[in-house]
Amino acid sequence: MKIIKNPDRSAWADLIKRPTQSLESIEETVVQIFDDVQRNGDVAVQKYTSLFDGTDAELTTVTNTEITNAAQKVSEDLKSAIQVAKQNIETFHSAQKTGKIEIETMPGVMCWQEKRAIERIGLYIPGGTAPLFSTVLMLAVPAQLAGCKEIILCTPPNKNGVIANEILFAAQLCGVTKIYKVGGIQAIAAMTFGTDTIPQVYKIFGPGNQFVTVAKQLATKYGVAIDMPAGPSELLVVADDSANPAYVASDLLSQAEHGADSQVILVSNSEALLTAVELEIQQQLTALPRQAMAQKAIDNSKLILIGDDQDALDFINAYGPEHFIVCTQNEIFFLEGIRNAGSVFVGNYTPESAGDYASGTNHTLPTNGYSKAYSGVNLDSFSKSMTFQKISKEGLKTIGKTIELMADAEGLQAHKNAVSIRLNDLAK
Amino acid sequence: MKIIKNPDRSAWADLIKRPTQSLESIEETVVQIFDDVQRNGDVAVQKYTSLFDGTDAELTTVTNTEITNAAQKVSEDLKSAIQVAKQNIETFHSAQKTGKIEIETMPGVMCWQEKRAIERIGLYIPGGTAPLFSTVLMLAVPAQLAGCKEIILCTPPNKNGVIANEILFAAQLCGVTKIYKVGGIQAIAAMTFGTDTIPQVYKIFGPGNQFVTVAKQLATKYGVAIDMPAGPSELLVVADDSANPAYVASDLLSQAEHGADSQVILVSNSEALLTAVELEIQQQLTALPRQAMAQKAIDNSKLILIGDDQDALDFINAYGPEHFIVCTQNEIFFLEGIRNAGSVFVGNYTPESAGDYASGTNHTLPTNGYSKAYSGVNLDSFSKSMTFQKISKEGLKTIGKTIELMADAEGLQAHKNAVSIRLNDLAK
Repeated sequence: MKIIKNPDRSAWADLIKRPTQSLESIEETVVQIFDDVQRNGDVAVQKYTSLFDGTDAELTTVTNTEITNAAQKVSEDLKSAIQVAKQNIETFHSAQKTGKIEIETMPGVMCWQEKRAIERIGLYIPGGTAPLFSTVLMLAVPAQLAGCKEIILCTPPNKNGVIANEILFAAQLCGVTKIYKVGGIQAIAAMTFGTDTIPQVYKIFGPGNQFVTVAKQLATKYGVAIDMPAGPSELLVVADDSANPAYVASDLLSQAEHGADSQVILVSNSEALLTAVELEIQQQLTALPRQAMAQKAIDNSKLILIGDDQDALDFINAYGPEHFIVCTQNEIFFLEGIRNAGSVFVGNYTPESAGDYASGTNHTLPTNGYSKAYSGVNLDSFSKSMTFQKISKEGLKTIGKTIELMADAEGLQAHKNAVSIRLNDLAK
Repeated sequence: MKIIKNPDRSAWADLIKRPTQSLESIEETVVQIFDDVQRNGDVAVQKYTSLFDGTDAELTTVTNTEITNAAQKVSEDLKSAIQVAKQNIETFHSAQKTGKIEIETMPGVMCWQEKRAIERIGLYIPGGTAPLFSTVLMLAVPAQLAGCKEIILCTPPNKNGVIANEILFAAQLCGVTKIYKVGGIQAIAAMTFGTDTIPQVYKIFGPGNQFVTVAKQLATKYGVAIDMPAGPSELLVVADDSANPAYVASDLLSQAEHGADSQVILVSNSEALLTAVELEIQQQLTALPRQAMAQKAIDNSKLILIGDDQDALDFINAYGPEHFIVCTQNEIFFLEGIRNAGSVFVGNYTPESAGDYASGTNHTLPTNGYSKAYSGVNLDSFSKSMTFQKISKEGLKTIGKTIELMADAEGLQAHKNAVSIRLNDLAK
């Protein structure tokens, strides 16, 4: 691991840089598959499922029987755990509900704002070695709370044409309306254009590999919204001597096991802590089943000594971490000062994995510095805010002249006329 | 104008179609200019300003003296009107503030959500025949309310190297921190990469022609967020015999004068109203200075007879209009049922131009059916929601087992271990 001591501000730009993903080489493939799915619908989707997932399973909506059977195979312990997590996510996201906001901006000029659910949304859940059922909870629970009418879920089948039991159990528990065994670019393309089997959606949520990332970006060109741009997962910990080195090491490792391209950074004002954490990492690493993968991420990780807390905070805001653990006595300073982060974990007993699974916050978060402009997924991600206005005769008499003057100055005569024609009648 | 009577649902897909913009031919130019600005900064920006705007004015931040001089040239009447509009926009957007949301999801598990302003944003204000100072109000007022520290404004200079007085007056009034005389693709590129003169921003807002539209889309590839994808402006009016045909006509025309590609639709259950509005349009049209442009939009507009209100509502939701005027006795039915629209105008005395300028609602709205997934610009557009969690020892004892079970089932051992290592200590 690299220990960097009190880097000069001029070195920050390099330190906050993420490994650049070269996605251009993928783009051509993605465009081609989109084109094929747009033209040939289900036939194209099935072709790519066969090609990429190695299964010729028929492209149909997953049946209730399949879901019931799958649910029976999930252990009672895990079912209870999923229920607890679901309850916490529900509690926290319910609290985010906002009501109608209504204001009379001038006498007779009523303006109001209301949120309406996005009617049809698509969730993408990656396949691979582990079934990421926790992401089903993180997306479907707030979608249902927001009132989305149709919640479509696409996830790739394995070679036997099967989806993980845990994913099916979580999906039916959280109100997913339709499930399809389709993954990768072809899943995103199908939800973008709609096919005979898979409905077109208005917004697509969920993580994925670089092919899915590029496919989601392309979907926006066709008017489909997406939750946020994606990138490798990352964690930044700020800690001082009050932090427990073993705990900090365990958190850094939990991030590192996501993949070789995971970003892991520890910022501290204590050289002793940096050394202690490094030692702990080496010890804990040997016991991990994903040791090889975690080792690669750890090799690229950074332990940074920054003596001054204001400097540390400025550096962290310049980085804008997806996950941010604060484990210092100067806790309030960092909590009040953090401007760019996805989700923040406070104190020795709040590991990142709490938020990944069960505390109630969402784990779909902006990486790659996107926290400077993007929110993590929250209740509002599943609705749109609409505005309304109703002006009375008296109201128009009050505000009319203002509109006429401004429209005139912008050279928009018909805009002015829409007011004048009414004011003339009212003056009669 | 085309009158379409009781179209079958199978014909809706065609009726709600917007004219497809072919933007691919532009993309190459945009990519090339981005590349040049990324590499050559100010020199490239100045080159394109000279090429496209025909001025060699020096690329500098607009000075306070320039702003003061410009403000003196704006008439007192217009200044007052702008002040009234600003006040209403401020009142309505202030009401959208949400506080910290804090919930104990389980005993000892505190979760909270807070909004933090996006630190650096860029506003793009188009040039052209009319100075669109109203858009300055719509973007800078909520940006300042949200607490954005740096509000950059780019707008193209005219051939004499000058920006409209009204834009400079509105910008300083609403707290814009820096103004640059740069337009088009080079402005978006400069705010995306940053140059020696123009700062890099985290999110870009504002309308523009098709070059700006494609440039904003490209900016997202470099991690810069944008307000929303753009398209030609549009208005859908639903009206019955209680509507005043002259008023409806004036509203349709105010939309039509935006440009030949503007979308104008009237839905009514009354054939008499459709005929009366058509007549009114022909009469009012002759008096308009932008008659030629409006005529083209009107030629493409649609008057649609739909007898049943539920059918009408379904059609309107399928269309998802940017602006939606409701002028019927069955007003509440449409207000409660509308799911996809940018901003809604209610009754005979609420012309669209009220919201365009001064009622208090925002006029930066989703077109092209994007209202199905996108909000119009609102206070939240200028901040991000961040989440926090703090778990006590007791809290971790309560929630720990749940996290361990879920992490284990997802095959993420280090995630589990981050909890286990703490629970083991607590059990001692």
